[in-house]
Amino acid sequence: MYHIIFFLLQLLIFSSHAAVQDFCVGDLTGPEGPAGYSCKKPATVTVDDFVFSGLGMPGNTTNIIKAAVTPAFSAQFPGVNGLGISIARLDLAAGGVIPLHTHPGGSEVLVVVEGSILAGFISSANSVYYKILKKGDLMVFPRGLLHFQINAGGVPAVAFPSFSSPSPGLQITAFALFANDLPSVLVEKTTFLDDAQVKKLKAVLGGTG
Amino acid sequence: MYHIIFFLLQLLIFSSHAAVQDFCVGDLTGPEGPAGYSCKKPATVTVDDFVFSGLGMPGNTTNIIKAAVTPAFSAQFPGVNGLGISIARLDLAAGGVIPLHTHPGGSEVLVVVEGSILAGFISSANSVYYKILKKGDLMVFPRGLLHFQINAGGVPAVAFPSFSSPSPGLQITAFALFANDLPSVLVEKTTFLDDAQVKKLKAVLGGTG
Amino acid sequence: MYHIIFFLLQLLIFSSHAAVQDFCVGDLTGPEGPAGYSCKKPATVTVDDFVFSGLGMPGNTTNIIKAAVTPAFSAQFPGVNGLGISIARLDLAAGGVIPLHTHPGGSEVLVVVEGSILAGFISSANSVYYKILKKGDLMVFPRGLLHFQINAGGVPAVAFPSFSSPSPGLQITAFALFANDLPSVLVEKTTFLDDAQVKKLKAVLGGTG
Amino acid sequence: MYHIIFFLLQLLIFSSHAAVQDFCVGDLTGPEGPAGYSCKKPATVTVDDFVFSGLGMPGNTTNIIKAAVTPAFSAQFPGVNGLGISIARLDLAAGGVIPLHTHPGGSEVLVVVEGSILAGFISSANSVYYKILKKGDLMVFPRGLLHFQINAGGVPAVAFPSFSSPSPGLQITAFALFANDLPSVLVEKTTFLDDAQVKKLKAVLGGTG
Amino acid sequence: MYHIIFFLLQLLIFSSHAAVQDFCVGDLTGPEGPAGYSCKKPATVTVDDFVFSGLGMPGNTTNIIKAAVTPAFSAQFPGVNGLGISIARLDLAAGGVIPLHTHPGGSEVLVVVEGSILAGFISSANSVYYKILKKGDLMVFPRGLLHFQINAGGVPAVAFPSFSSPSPGLQITAFALFANDLPSVLVEKTTFLDDAQVKKLKAVLGGTG
Amino acid sequence: MYHIIFFLLQLLIFSSHAAVQDFCVGDLTGPEGPAGYSCKKPATVTVDDFVFSGLGMPGNTTNIIKAAVTPAFSAQFPGVNGLGISIARLDLAAGGVIPLHTHPGGSEVLVVVEGSILAGFISSANSVYYKILKKGDLMVFPRGLLHFQINAGGVPAVAFPSFSSPSPGLQITAFALFANDLPSVLVEKTTFLDDAQVKKLKAVLGGTG
Repeated sequence: MYHIIFFLLQLLIFSSHAAVQDFCVGDLTGPEGPAGYSCKKPATVTVDDFVFSGLGMPGNTTNIIKAAVTPAFSAQFPGVNGLGISIARLDLAAGGVIPLHTHPGGSEVLVVVEGSILAGFISSANSVYYKILKKGDLMVFPRGLLHFQINAGGVPAVAFPSFSSPSPGLQITAFALFANDLPSVLVEKTTFLDDAQVKKLKAVLGGTG
Repeated sequence: MYHIIFFLLQLLIFSSHAAVQDFCVGDLTGPEGPAGYSCKKPATVTVDDFVFSGLGMPGNTTNIIKAAVTPAFSAQFPGVNGLGISIARLDLAAGGVIPLHTHPGGSEVLVVVEGSILAGFISSANSVYYKILKKGDLMVFPRGLLHFQINAGGVPAVAFPSFSSPSPGLQITAFALFANDLPSVLVEKTTFLDDAQVKKLKAVLGGTG
Repeated sequence: MYHIIFFLLQLLIFSSHAAVQDFCVGDLTGPEGPAGYSCKKPATVTVDDFVFSGLGMPGNTTNIIKAAVTPAFSAQFPGVNGLGISIARLDLAAGGVIPLHTHPGGSEVLVVVEGSILAGFISSANSVYYKILKKGDLMVFPRGLLHFQINAGGVPAVAFPSFSSPSPGLQITAFALFANDLPSVLVEKTTFLDDAQVKKLKAVLGGTG
Repeated sequence: MYHIIFFLLQLLIFSSHAAVQDFCVGDLTGPEGPAGYSCKKPATVTVDDFVFSGLGMPGNTTNIIKAAVTPAFSAQFPGVNGLGISIARLDLAAGGVIPLHTHPGGSEVLVVVEGSILAGFISSANSVYYKILKKGDLMVFPRGLLHFQINAGGVPAVAFPSFSSPSPGLQITAFALFANDLPSVLVEKTTFLDDAQVKKLKAVLGGTG
Repeated sequence: MYHIIFFLLQLLIFSSHAAVQDFCVGDLTGPEGPAGYSCKKPATVTVDDFVFSGLGMPGNTTNIIKAAVTPAFSAQFPGVNGLGISIARLDLAAGGVIPLHTHPGGSEVLVVVEGSILAGFISSANSVYYKILKKGDLMVFPRGLLHFQINAGGVPAVAFPSFSSPSPGLQITAFALFANDLPSVLVEKTTFLDDAQVKKLKAVLGGTG
Repeated sequence: MYHIIFFLLQLLIFSSHAAVQDFCVGDLTGPEGPAGYSCKKPATVTVDDFVFSGLGMPGNTTNIIKAAVTPAFSAQFPGVNGLGISIARLDLAAGGVIPLHTHPGGSEVLVVVEGSILAGFISSANSVYYKILKKGDLMVFPRGLLHFQINAGGVPAVAFPSFSSPSPGLQITAFALFANDLPSVLVEKTTFLDDAQVKKLKAVLGGTG
């Protein structure tokens, strides 16, 4: 029995050192590097670091797009830090739209769990791929490409998009163009849009310049 | 107008060459390499390569574990080939269990969409992390670690596990031990299990030796 | 001397096997995988596979944007296949503009070699970063983010953008929206643009629907 | 000569900045991230950071498994931090066994340097691959798959397993099941093992519950 | 309008968390890890972090090699930290030479912008690939392989080498051999060079031993 | 029982598809890509694909350097293809030397199993790290850096170097300089070596030009 204990201690010491690379629960207060957040000390990690309950409730869709994205990326769910994966919840009320956007840092697989969604993406070659997805259908959006989701039924739709990165980012084209202080003249020159159109949308989306 | 067309052609030629790296829909009949399947020719790719409808129906849970895993990995859903992500569907009837297993090739995030599930994993340091997940809850299982899911309600549960690899693999410990021709004496020596236990489970799970 | 030769032969045999991983000049006719093109047989590789002369001449800027991008990605310059890098040439005539675009597959560093360029990008947080670059100045555009370049002098400007991928892709937002058959109604719903604006630009850029 | 010195200084300044990426000797007291430990300041690094003498002595095999694993992972040998490789020493006394285990974070190549070893692994498809290895023989164990080593002679065996990660982890199945507080009922449900078997091994290996 | 603002705030909060992974401007004073420097706080990042003006002036070529390398690696240009790319400026006066060297951490693509350069590399199989490059020509040097650049005209040449790493390193063979305290006897044994040759070059390049 | 079989079949079908990513034994006759060789069909893979016996015998050290390197890289041992690791055997007779060299594609950890070895490497900052290693000692050589091994006892030494790549490459500096047709004038200009020295070593090592 002594030997067993000896062996166990030996292994446990070994393992407790090695275990850190099993996971790296993000310490949002520590330094951040190109690969993600610093790791919480393993001794302070509990099961609650690996569980996230924030996607159980519908997001608030009483807004201009009648839609909501609730992310569980490493900033919200530090348990995924360093693990190459994250997830979010998509709520689309009737008439809801997730505007054209990209995730600069990863690919996405979307699974529809309620309602139906018209989803699509555009390739570098400007080819368009879109289809109506029903409950249980999947669609994959390759990393960095423009894509969108639109409620395709008269009832609320819910979907879970997963990402190949713990922090894939989200760049909504309309917000990038019209919800900041990028001067209108630069928006116009780089998009071919008319001045009136640009100014109208800057007003709607809170942009200036 | 001539100039526009000229420019468009120039860009389209450029883009059609470059577009291949946008995605690499798996050609299951071509050579496979360490990074995945060969790519289908972009010209033959359609939206149906990026959509998968196989997860809309419950898996068949009338089996010994009252559970089913339906994968949408690159072998089933070639659209995810090379994109660092995949997904599956988990069905757990009342009393259902997904036995202890690992995914050698990736981390997993599980989202529960129906019922409740007792899920857990064990770290390299032999620490155990488990909790009952309700509808909408997430749990992350770091790559390569032993984990399990058990129906925690009296009603069917459904969940979608996503993976940080298009082909994460699945190694069920009980099957690895008892459902093949690994000689019983080797199983016993390397697991400390009794001979009677090993032979009993080999009989149940179809193993020999 | 016999020993030397023996040793040399031994090493050369070894090396000729191992050498393939030194480089993997793309065989554009072979199967392509997620990591790039198949490799040309090392025995057929010559220095000309590693040299590319296509960027010596200005691109044709007599087009709507008074600008040209000439890529030396793996499709044009197969020597960079598998090496995690590529480059292009940017020509901006007076008044020239490279419209808002992303590279889904990589980051970019731009060096200006003639003239001056107003360059900028927009982050996921919708922050805008732009500045006028002079000859010799660099700017980095993180992967996947929207960015643009505009001639900022009255004379032609030339720059060389390098990429962290042999095939970074190029998705020009205006072309993605207006130069294909994505139905106008979908463009409008997902961008907030007006119908008239969308139809006008589809007409200019060759789109339908 | 002045110019030489000038040039040297210029280069050395440059190099001393750039040199950090040559290596990143782990500072076990600093913050840890998903990619490994923080780097020691290059100025404090000496040759002893790159040399490890802990594998020269046999591990203590007077234990239940008559075997010992002595790791030189980044936690023990910080010189390998960030370099994608590590190594360990395996001692198997006569009758010794390294129980079934996985390395969640990497692949392994084992070289036998004394005695003979019966080694094997089990694939995701439940195929079994095993063979007796003699002195000088190698066997590769793909990342994350269950494998084992058993002394196959009547004399001590020694081997050096190398890993494709500076911190590959080590999860011994019997310890994960029986050497912690994972409740017996959960072990039984997820492995099909009998209650008596589980309780017997929990008693032997120090588990509770 | 309330809803819009609500939605915007929601997204901005989300984005400001997620935005960190858009980029990771190096904080040269913070801890460094295997993946690079710690990130500056996004709120303190400005456009000047993404712009670098240090390559606009010729490097000082009044030295023994009549050449200069001015790097814009992550240590000089922290904006490229974590982005997989960097660049430098090469100045070769008439008769100038960049001696044989490697970049241990990345591949290089060189573009010539003034003059002409004889550039070449040697593969693991000891094959030699070299050619005279003119203005606008590119050459790729696969990672880790010995290569060189020599002014091939009677006039100054300028080139921009880009790298597939923000910190590719630079190891000049002659400096590694002769500009440090590596004992001459070790240099001789490991290179076959004569003692007189080694001592002569140690004297020229500042080495001892 | 029917259900068990049904479930097993279901899983086995699933697994047999997914299993390919468990490993990718190299098919040396198939197309090669940037990530390695094509995979052998899993059905044809046997345990012998994962076992390599070529390192059991000493390499032939009756040569100019009294040393031999016997690689088990993916070209010799296709079982490691795609797995991020490989190994070799080093034999150093009394007086034997492995000349200064780099591995362009990976880091190395060396374990000494017989005799003693003086090993060292040189960093990008031209710092030198060397030490005498005894039986059981390890030394790590970061990727791409110049390093060497010299027999440090009067008796044969044996070591096993492992690499963080299945095909790390091997570039011996003296062979790169003197064992090919790189013109002497180019060698001299890029290394500062004297013409007589270069021509002498070209004669010894089989070079021309």
